[in-house]
Amino acid sequence: MLNKNHPRYQSLVYRDKIVKAHENGILADSGMIAHGRGETFDYLIGEKTTDNSQNTIDVAACYFLTSKNPVLSVNGNTTALVSEEIAQLADLLDIPVEINLYYRTPERIVNIEKVYRDLGVKNILGTDDDDFIDTPDLDGPRSPVSIEGIKKADLVFIPLEDGDRAEKLYALGKDIVNVDLNPLSRTAQTSTVTIVDNIVRVMPALIKSVEKYSDYDNSDLQEKIDKFNNNVNLDTAIHDIIKRFE
Amino acid sequence: MLNKNHPRYQSLVYRDKIVKAHENGILADSGMIAHGRGETFDYLIGEKTTDNSQNTIDVAACYFLTSKNPVLSVNGNTTALVSEEIAQLADLLDIPVEINLYYRTPERIVNIEKVYRDLGVKNILGTDDDDFIDTPDLDGPRSPVSIEGIKKADLVFIPLEDGDRAEKLYALGKDIVNVDLNPLSRTAQTSTVTIVDNIVRVMPALIKSVEKYSDYDNSDLQEKIDKFNNNVNLDTAIHDIIKRFE
Repeated sequence: MLNKNHPRYQSLVYRDKIVKAHENGILADSGMIAHGRGETFDYLIGEKTTDNSQNTIDVAACYFLTSKNPVLSVNGNTTALVSEEIAQLADLLDIPVEINLYYRTPERIVNIEKVYRDLGVKNILGTDDDDFIDTPDLDGPRSPVSIEGIKKADLVFIPLEDGDRAEKLYALGKDIVNVDLNPLSRTAQTSTVTIVDNIVRVMPALIKSVEKYSDYDNSDLQEKIDKFNNNVNLDTAIHDIIKRFE
Repeated sequence: MLNKNHPRYQSLVYRDKIVKAHENGILADSGMIAHGRGETFDYLIGEKTTDNSQNTIDVAACYFLTSKNPVLSVNGNTTALVSEEIAQLADLLDIPVEINLYYRTPERIVNIEKVYRDLGVKNILGTDDDDFIDTPDLDGPRSPVSIEGIKKADLVFIPLEDGDRAEKLYALGKDIVNVDLNPLSRTAQTSTVTIVDNIVRVMPALIKSVEKYSDYDNSDLQEKIDKFNNNVNLDTAIHDIIKRFE
């Protein structure tokens, strides 16, 4: 039983989700460790959405609304923490969810696919029924990139993704919206839009932002996109962390 | 198979030890997540022992050599990563190892005890044969504090320990040497000597330092201790991290 009076109650709730997802065959061992890495960064940014992060989320929403074929690419950690919001966003934008796992096993694919099917997601890519592009320059037990999921996509949303895949997608000419609590990571540095924030706060805010900006003219959305500079965004995120230490 | 050419090979080796310890019933789920938190802090301090950390390790060695009854208090993460070095230090100083687990279960106690028995440690405290002090002010599933382990101790080494227990030990009037990668943590702030460094680098360095200072006069050791200020140490550690971000 979690104690609601604990100063880190929210953090413990999400830790609990991570442990359960591990038990349910959704999360690899390394996913638990990755969650811990995220906890530290979230602690450093003060466990809140900064003004800079909110603006970046709004820019991401504008990208979603101006792109032709966005795809939501999910892994075990994203599924453990925010599967409901992913399903909601996929429904809102009428776009597919692609399952992409670092440690791909048939069991984990099936388990994760079931999570999204149960949430009503119709268009699921990256399952074992899908065709794959070989990605020989991705080292290690990396999951391949699904053809359907990626070939047509002009925008890929890759929360909690690793640097190798981000670079690969970037080389394929895709726009990348990424959620990464580490502003120094390769993924953060490679992406078109890097939301330096906790995925559990980002997803509800992103849905709200997509709803808000869906009423705007395309030229207004494009103006917001053009004003955005990801390097300035990352610099601001880094300085927000430094301020916490001081 | 781990790829030796991976830029984070060492980090992957220790991650592997953590996963194995989890499989072997030594580490709780939360221990895997805690390891991830440590990885981030280690990344931030540059994955190396700073001059400030080496000096703090030397001061810790002086404390070990001038204390009457030091105890090495270990948990699952410490055991997963540096059980051999813990056994070596216990042997070198002829002092006990106390098992103290946040999520205490009879199985984990037995598994961890076996690790140290196999490494030749004779004096193991905190097992279920031991007597315990009730610690009603420690919230949650916290392990009790073993009487034998703590009553006689004037110095307790608590690597990777949580804040609640550190404060409890401090209130009991013990000197505390702690290893914590987060210089902002309650444990770090509560301890007599906080080594802000990765336990896998600290343990070999600490053993070396104990060997070196064991030739020194007591007055020289005391002088080194008197010159040390843990607040200055923590400030330096924080600034070393800020420098990395800049």
